[in-house]
Amino acid sequence: MANQATLFVVSAPSGAGKRTVLKLVLARDAGLEYAVSATTRRARPGEVNGRDYVFLDVGEFRRRVDGEQFVEWAEVHGNLYGTLREELARRLPSGKDVVLEVDVQGMRNLKALRNDLVTVFIMPPSFEELKTRMRKRAANDEANIALRLENAREEMAARHEYDYIIVNDVVEEAVEDMLAIVRAQRRRSTRQR
Amino acid sequence: MANQATLFVVSAPSGAGKRTVLKLVLARDAGLEYAVSATTRRARPGEVNGRDYVFLDVGEFRRRVDGEQFVEWAEVHGNLYGTLREELARRLPSGKDVVLEVDVQGMRNLKALRNDLVTVFIMPPSFEELKTRMRKRAANDEANIALRLENAREEMAARHEYDYIIVNDVVEEAVEDMLAIVRAQRRRSTRQR
Repeated sequence: MANQATLFVVSAPSGAGKRTVLKLVLARDAGLEYAVSATTRRARPGEVNGRDYVFLDVGEFRRRVDGEQFVEWAEVHGNLYGTLREELARRLPSGKDVVLEVDVQGMRNLKALRNDLVTVFIMPPSFEELKTRMRKRAANDEANIALRLENAREEMAARHEYDYIIVNDVVEEAVEDMLAIVRAQRRRSTRQR
Repeated sequence: MANQATLFVVSAPSGAGKRTVLKLVLARDAGLEYAVSATTRRARPGEVNGRDYVFLDVGEFRRRVDGEQFVEWAEVHGNLYGTLREELARRLPSGKDVVLEVDVQGMRNLKALRNDLVTVFIMPPSFEELKTRMRKRAANDEANIALRLENAREEMAARHEYDYIIVNDVVEEAVEDMLAIVRAQRRRSTRQR
């Protein structure tokens, strides 16, 4: 039976541990690929251009927006983030499933464009825990944290627009949840035609 | 977040290995319970009344049909099979997910009655393999096998009416598929309200 690829769209408020969960999921599921987003924010220590993000300066990002190279893009915390059309075009036809990180607005934009999405929202176990995690990131000052918490509150209010909600309390459980969602999707009768 | 239980309805042609798969799934997922069907067919060696089936004689089965004690019932291979109303009423409110085996007609009847079902069809890897498996069951003579193969062909044609299709080639993989479907369902945003 032919098996068409699924695009998994994952959102989470900053500090929910999305990157950690997805890194472990990708390491354990060889049929899943990561679609790299483009951003104008600066690379954090350890981040690699083209692997974690495609890092672009604002001018280059804007030029690509004008050239309609983005499926969707948005401004988040003063930086631009977007999904490059070529990134999806390159990965999906291989038959592998693709996981893509976007914010709530990005998910809504993608949903309006494609009907083959499976959407997943990753939650922190509590709002208090989110605050604690944000404070541990040295790069965040209090004003920055207040802004991110307000954004997190707004994003979490939209969680029921997603197909699935994973609470990232114990990382290993959240990883198992995501692996199960991907595996179950491959057994969908609509994918086996 | 409150988590309501899901009723998983599983069908498979005779010989697809449904019972083996479900037994292993139930042993590994403590949040899942088995809803016992009633039948007028005779118990096979090792089968226990009330655990594998509620074994009823035809008169008693008919009386319960008249008393509207069945959610659905059907005649399969000359025997009566049905889902007792009390069996679901007893299990679902506990908050545990419930797995129920029915044939294609039973699935259709249940789907018309409830909208909280997740339906799963278990396939043999091939029609040839199904024949081989049926011949291994000493109880089946060639006429019986021909009848069951014809039924299997009809049931398999209906597989796309189900939400999920699992091919039971390697048992452990089929078990992992079913466990993933159950786990993913618990992360559905519609269940977390």
